[in-house]
Amino acid sequence: MKDLTITGTYTDLYQLTMAQVYFLTGKNNDEAVFDYFFRKLPYEGGYTVFAGLGTFLDILEDLHFTRADIDYLKGIGLNEQFVNSLESFRFRGTIYAAREGEVVFPNEPVLRLQGNMMEAQIVETLLLNILNFQSLIATKAARMRTVAGDRTLSDFGLRRAQGTGGYHATRAAIVGGFDSTSNVKAALDFGIPAVGTMAHSFIQSYDDELAAFRDFAIHRPENCILLVDTYDTLKSGIPNAITVAKEMHEHSQQLLGVRLDSGDLAYLSKKTRKMLDEAGLHEVKITASNQLDEWVIKSLLDQQAPIDIFGVGTSLVTGPPDAALDGVYKLAYAHRKPRIKLSENLKKITLPDKKQVYRMINGEGNFFGADVITLADENVPDIMYHPVEPDKSLEIKGLTSEPLLHKVMDQGKIVFTPSLKEIAAYCQERLNMLPDEHKRFYYPHIYKVGLSEKLRHKRDEMKKYYKK
Amino acid sequence: MKDLTITGTYTDLYQLTMAQVYFLTGKNNDEAVFDYFFRKLPYEGGYTVFAGLGTFLDILEDLHFTRADIDYLKGIGLNEQFVNSLESFRFRGTIYAAREGEVVFPNEPVLRLQGNMMEAQIVETLLLNILNFQSLIATKAARMRTVAGDRTLSDFGLRRAQGTGGYHATRAAIVGGFDSTSNVKAALDFGIPAVGTMAHSFIQSYDDELAAFRDFAIHRPENCILLVDTYDTLKSGIPNAITVAKEMHEHSQQLLGVRLDSGDLAYLSKKTRKMLDEAGLHEVKITASNQLDEWVIKSLLDQQAPIDIFGVGTSLVTGPPDAALDGVYKLAYAHRKPRIKLSENLKKITLPDKKQVYRMINGEGNFFGADVITLADENVPDIMYHPVEPDKSLEIKGLTSEPLLHKVMDQGKIVFTPSLKEIAAYCQERLNMLPDEHKRFYYPHIYKVGLSEKLRHKRDEMKKYYKK
Repeated sequence: MKDLTITGTYTDLYQLTMAQVYFLTGKNNDEAVFDYFFRKLPYEGGYTVFAGLGTFLDILEDLHFTRADIDYLKGIGLNEQFVNSLESFRFRGTIYAAREGEVVFPNEPVLRLQGNMMEAQIVETLLLNILNFQSLIATKAARMRTVAGDRTLSDFGLRRAQGTGGYHATRAAIVGGFDSTSNVKAALDFGIPAVGTMAHSFIQSYDDELAAFRDFAIHRPENCILLVDTYDTLKSGIPNAITVAKEMHEHSQQLLGVRLDSGDLAYLSKKTRKMLDEAGLHEVKITASNQLDEWVIKSLLDQQAPIDIFGVGTSLVTGPPDAALDGVYKLAYAHRKPRIKLSENLKKITLPDKKQVYRMINGEGNFFGADVITLADENVPDIMYHPVEPDKSLEIKGLTSEPLLHKVMDQGKIVFTPSLKEIAAYCQERLNMLPDEHKRFYYPHIYKVGLSEKLRHKRDEMKKYYKK
Repeated sequence: MKDLTITGTYTDLYQLTMAQVYFLTGKNNDEAVFDYFFRKLPYEGGYTVFAGLGTFLDILEDLHFTRADIDYLKGIGLNEQFVNSLESFRFRGTIYAAREGEVVFPNEPVLRLQGNMMEAQIVETLLLNILNFQSLIATKAARMRTVAGDRTLSDFGLRRAQGTGGYHATRAAIVGGFDSTSNVKAALDFGIPAVGTMAHSFIQSYDDELAAFRDFAIHRPENCILLVDTYDTLKSGIPNAITVAKEMHEHSQQLLGVRLDSGDLAYLSKKTRKMLDEAGLHEVKITASNQLDEWVIKSLLDQQAPIDIFGVGTSLVTGPPDAALDGVYKLAYAHRKPRIKLSENLKKITLPDKKQVYRMINGEGNFFGADVITLADENVPDIMYHPVEPDKSLEIKGLTSEPLLHKVMDQGKIVFTPSLKEIAAYCQERLNMLPDEHKRFYYPHIYKVGLSEKLRHKRDEMKKYYKK
């Protein structure tokens, strides 16, 4: 099969045609600064979890064009000198970014990339592809974590994932707060606990359910979870599981749990808990799967469903009803000048120049609910301004502030490498600092993102210049 | 970075724990037969395009466990003898499938896999992961093709794809009827025409738009498409593009097109066409992008928008509003017996035994609108029965019939290898044979899938047996 390793051609063709023009006009080594940001929060929610940074930087550090890439590009009409120059292509830029796992908001730069025009352009597609997707899935996972409390959340999604996208979906799920995965390859590569139960086919392959349960318990007693809905959950599956659990006890083993995969999960989990408890099997856990998402999990727990482990598939790894985070990568500085993109829609005018973002922290050490975007060399201002409504401002004087963007890559070398565990812990720490009103599923409170006076002035002056 | 090549661990852990039990109980070499089918048509539409088969078979033919896979599996508590046996694992099963690009319908087997219990179980996740996703995207692409007529459809989606899922999304888009892609790696690996225009950043990096257009036309005159909405489409972008087109004429070159990426695409394309035509530039094409899907394309064309090329991103490569095709893989035969899975929901009871599907063709050579599922060794029956309503039947006597399932892999070796071009052509051929009433976006006519008398009888007898 084709090897899916990402190389320089993992990009849109226009990145290369533009790079060719920069190359042929001698502009390829001029400094360019791009911002990565998104405009719309997924799920009509109150926040986004920033994820994928580690993956992106890992790929970027090694990114190069292979012999096959070079030969192909020569064959599709690109300039030969330019294509030859790609043989020695390495990304040597510098990147400032929010920490992976950070809670972030619309229109603020989440990442700032500084490099030469050519390299900054070529890596755009890769950056957007990785960060947009993992941030979407980490956000979905975080929403489930906020309603699941300390119950176990497991990713069961690979079979319904968008092809190999499932691999990084699992990583992002862990960033957002999931505990484990059924995806063995992701577990291996990312050091995530791998978990699994059994499928209906295993039970169907036996003439009766009890014999199937027994064989499984004998030959795979560790972490044994029995699937109880192949024929009839309450009349067959649970009684047979209880029989096997008692037999395991006689061998000093313990049934870890049962799994419900159809029917009404609230009703069945209550009945199941009662039957297990009456058999003295208080320690046997209940796993539920089948069409779960954050709304269903919340609703099941609101109804006191005694479920210990949620196995989440499609909705976790593909993130519906949203299909993508709308993250974009916009030029802010090039050829020694700040740059701007205009639009009829005031909200879509970009913010020029190199920028920083400061998060305001209140007296209790929680987020105040306001981030301010400044020029990169400015101090934190006392007042921040609404990005589009000229008369709206907010005093932020006296609050503690933290810069969001930190150097994570220096001239092509990664300089900050937290483990996935640390990233996931950071995400929960930051979500805990985010007031509850921003975590509501319905009409969450809007987190404010404003501009410094200096940045606003620069944007407005440039707008005037280009409008004339 | 981590290499994304698919190996044996690209599976759910439970496939391996079940395989361990088959191994330890000596059942691993018994024959098993699984069916791949789906239950619900995406998009409330009238059909699904089957895609991903070539990718799946390619991967399957080489699938093996690496040293790293083996070491990892030993470290997570699986039986050592069993894990050692995976060192020599190769898929040696036989697969019957609908041709890739075939138009298929709910509840009929689209693929039948025959192998030993162990191999059939281990490859389930890979099969579902590849086929569910590519079939979803090929269906989405086909829907756009049915409304776009012979206009050009280009995939621009990599930046918003679900991570590396974008790679196979591009392949699937071609199966469903797309012409080209911006995704260079997919173009290279799958032999698809690569296309591209320019980004706003290119224009922003210049002090004025005309200079940017000029440089681009000089240094990349082939297939030159200018993006005209950075500052003001009708007042700046189009006049500057016209200037450059005329300059190109003087050098015997030709501007291929302009691209509209914001604003009302119907209004702007009409104004643009008029301005281009008045300048004598009848041959300059109009490309449109920005939030397109099959409904928007249809609506633009219903309003006579003179758009020649549609660039489709997010909606094509992620397939919303559906996130996944609900394809499943169900055991139909094992240990020398037909097998069944029951359910409270009659529709979810599986069909036992080895099966074939026949498609009925009418006198004009088009689809009659009925497929019948039979036992594998049966002749085409004269009557087919509704799968769940016992009194409903349909006479299919006298119609031509075609078997849908063909051998595509024989004991682990691929035996049918159409090119992507042939697959895409087959898809259009089959869509042309599908009557229009099944292609409507709203309330399409339901294509009938029925059972032979013998199959229905076998299912009902087994149901009775397990219900007692």
